[in-house]
Amino acid sequence: MSDVYAARRGLLRERCAAAGNSAALITRPANVRYLAGASPLGAVLLVGPADDELFCAAPPTSEADEGRLDEGLTLSLLGGPGADPAVAAADRAAAVRADSLAVEEHHLTVARHRAVSSVAPRLRLADLGTAVEQQRLVKDEEEIACLRIAAEIADQALGELLESILVGRTERHLALELERRLVDHGADGPAFPTSVGTGPHSGRSRHRPSDRRVEEGDFLSVCLGANYRGYRCEIGRTFVIGTTPADWQIELYDLVFAAQRAGREALLPGAAYREVDHAARSVLDSAGYGEALAGCTGHGVGLEIDEDPQLAPTAMGKLDACVPVTVEPGVHLPGRGGVRIDDTLVVRPEADGGPELLTITTKELLAL
Amino acid sequence: MSDVYAARRGLLRERCAAAGNSAALITRPANVRYLAGASPLGAVLLVGPADDELFCAAPPTSEADEGRLDEGLTLSLLGGPGADPAVAAADRAAAVRADSLAVEEHHLTVARHRAVSSVAPRLRLADLGTAVEQQRLVKDEEEIACLRIAAEIADQALGELLESILVGRTERHLALELERRLVDHGADGPAFPTSVGTGPHSGRSRHRPSDRRVEEGDFLSVCLGANYRGYRCEIGRTFVIGTTPADWQIELYDLVFAAQRAGREALLPGAAYREVDHAARSVLDSAGYGEALAGCTGHGVGLEIDEDPQLAPTAMGKLDACVPVTVEPGVHLPGRGGVRIDDTLVVRPEADGGPELLTITTKELLAL
Repeated sequence: MSDVYAARRGLLRERCAAAGNSAALITRPANVRYLAGASPLGAVLLVGPADDELFCAAPPTSEADEGRLDEGLTLSLLGGPGADPAVAAADRAAAVRADSLAVEEHHLTVARHRAVSSVAPRLRLADLGTAVEQQRLVKDEEEIACLRIAAEIADQALGELLESILVGRTERHLALELERRLVDHGADGPAFPTSVGTGPHSGRSRHRPSDRRVEEGDFLSVCLGANYRGYRCEIGRTFVIGTTPADWQIELYDLVFAAQRAGREALLPGAAYREVDHAARSVLDSAGYGEALAGCTGHGVGLEIDEDPQLAPTAMGKLDACVPVTVEPGVHLPGRGGVRIDDTLVVRPEADGGPELLTITTKELLAL
Repeated sequence: MSDVYAARRGLLRERCAAAGNSAALITRPANVRYLAGASPLGAVLLVGPADDELFCAAPPTSEADEGRLDEGLTLSLLGGPGADPAVAAADRAAAVRADSLAVEEHHLTVARHRAVSSVAPRLRLADLGTAVEQQRLVKDEEEIACLRIAAEIADQALGELLESILVGRTERHLALELERRLVDHGADGPAFPTSVGTGPHSGRSRHRPSDRRVEEGDFLSVCLGANYRGYRCEIGRTFVIGTTPADWQIELYDLVFAAQRAGREALLPGAAYREVDHAARSVLDSAGYGEALAGCTGHGVGLEIDEDPQLAPTAMGKLDACVPVTVEPGVHLPGRGGVRIDDTLVVRPEADGGPELLTITTKELLAL
């Protein structure tokens, strides 16, 4: 793996040099992990001009959810509490005679930026922007393999829940049980806080589980994901509780299902982000649910659960092959509830069979 | 409660005015919650010069872990995805003719700071610094009551775990079970990721649970806390597994216990932060464990699990009454494990009986 990280840092170094910067200071944890193999708490990465170096406040613990540090990296442990690794890194950059340092202005706070510039006044600070995030967009097959395993784990945890009795249990407990099952099946942890919404809470994006209990006739929306070696997937399903769904439930479900399918089918290399969003959104719009819609109908996943691209009406850009994204339209009717259907897929060329579905739990409307 | 939040904002407004600023932009979530009663995802608070106003990207959901929004506040919902509430708030500040706006430079990123200043070029941006964090240091009795309940919940969850079979179970599962029990007893959730360390992992601060199983003869260190209405407490205990602890385990435990007691007994109004740290640290130092010690031996708790004050050798300042802090010295011997004992207490005058212990689980060395 070591050469993978070295290659990623090499690419970043080239991009920095092309922009006239001799070094880059990486502070955003997911970016540190992408380039260094691990992101110990508070660690920052200095890329070039000399050796690449990771600055930590505490020794890395080499636990799964921190990742394994690239052995090719120099490691610097800071002494003393309160010392900022970013300041130490800037000091080092100045010591090795870098003339300019690109920093992540979208992550670094104003106060830290000031501390960094004051420790190395001769160093010109530039903005790296989202260069690393852009590098992270297209995944290699090892990254996709981790996402595939994360999706399998989430499918297993969800499948087991569906075999258990649900009526009478609270959203909070169902969410906790799902998270336990994710770990049982080998996840390092949940990819994000598991969401369980019943009755009037169903269909809400990122609903935080409450003490409401599952009742006969409810819609039940579940959204969960596994973190496997740092890679995070997402699956969302909506079920009905009881023997026979009401007509409005069947109609709403079929509509959201059609919208989600349209979004999935629009996932092809070269498709504009907004086209994919429009494919799903227009189905719900034309049925009069435009207002009930969230800002985006899908997003990239990887080392973070919500990363670029955003599948939204105003998003700029086109999909590439090997970009994993979610497709997750939903409708929530205040006071009544609603439906959300969410899959994680990898964009693939039509020649390879089109989008690869990672989360394979059935999307028929199950009555539990 | 509404007047409590209004009073807090009034105090902040006075401090801003004294510093020559006519308005303040609060972006740090815990600070938003302290001043507004709730901190919906991404919400920011504009304090003065006219009405105080909360800017949200999405409607508040009024769930327990978000808090209840102060009805006295004006609420502004932003349309469109990707809109930054901080930018909207700065726009409003300019519209109501504020001449200067104090922002939280220790929280606001360089990129957001630029966006804020570009939307309102006539507005002079100043640094609010940690004014709100300082206001949060001394808790009122309602806040302390929440912390007291959070501590009771953590004591209950830990007590139940001690009655169950531990040998053969993994750190990960014990941590998940503790978190489930926290919720069972009324917590909105864990105050922080529950830490369970066995054998060589025991005694490590913030150890992330692994798949290691509890074995006979292990030290078992547990650190957990409950989040109750946003207020977070912390308790840490270390146990031995099996019938009879080894001599080194008893000696190490007695030493850490003595250090923790010395720290607790040093908690009095007017005591310097560093004196409290020294009281605990010197006991371990003199026994030759200085190196094995973390940067601080305790910290404040409240709406965040790690807030001011820091009880550390270099910390400046003195304790006040009604400041809740942890006292949590520990020693970890690489390869062997160690001991951590952690309580949450509220500083009280001697006349009132001295420090109030919130986490009351026994600190004798239990053999489980």
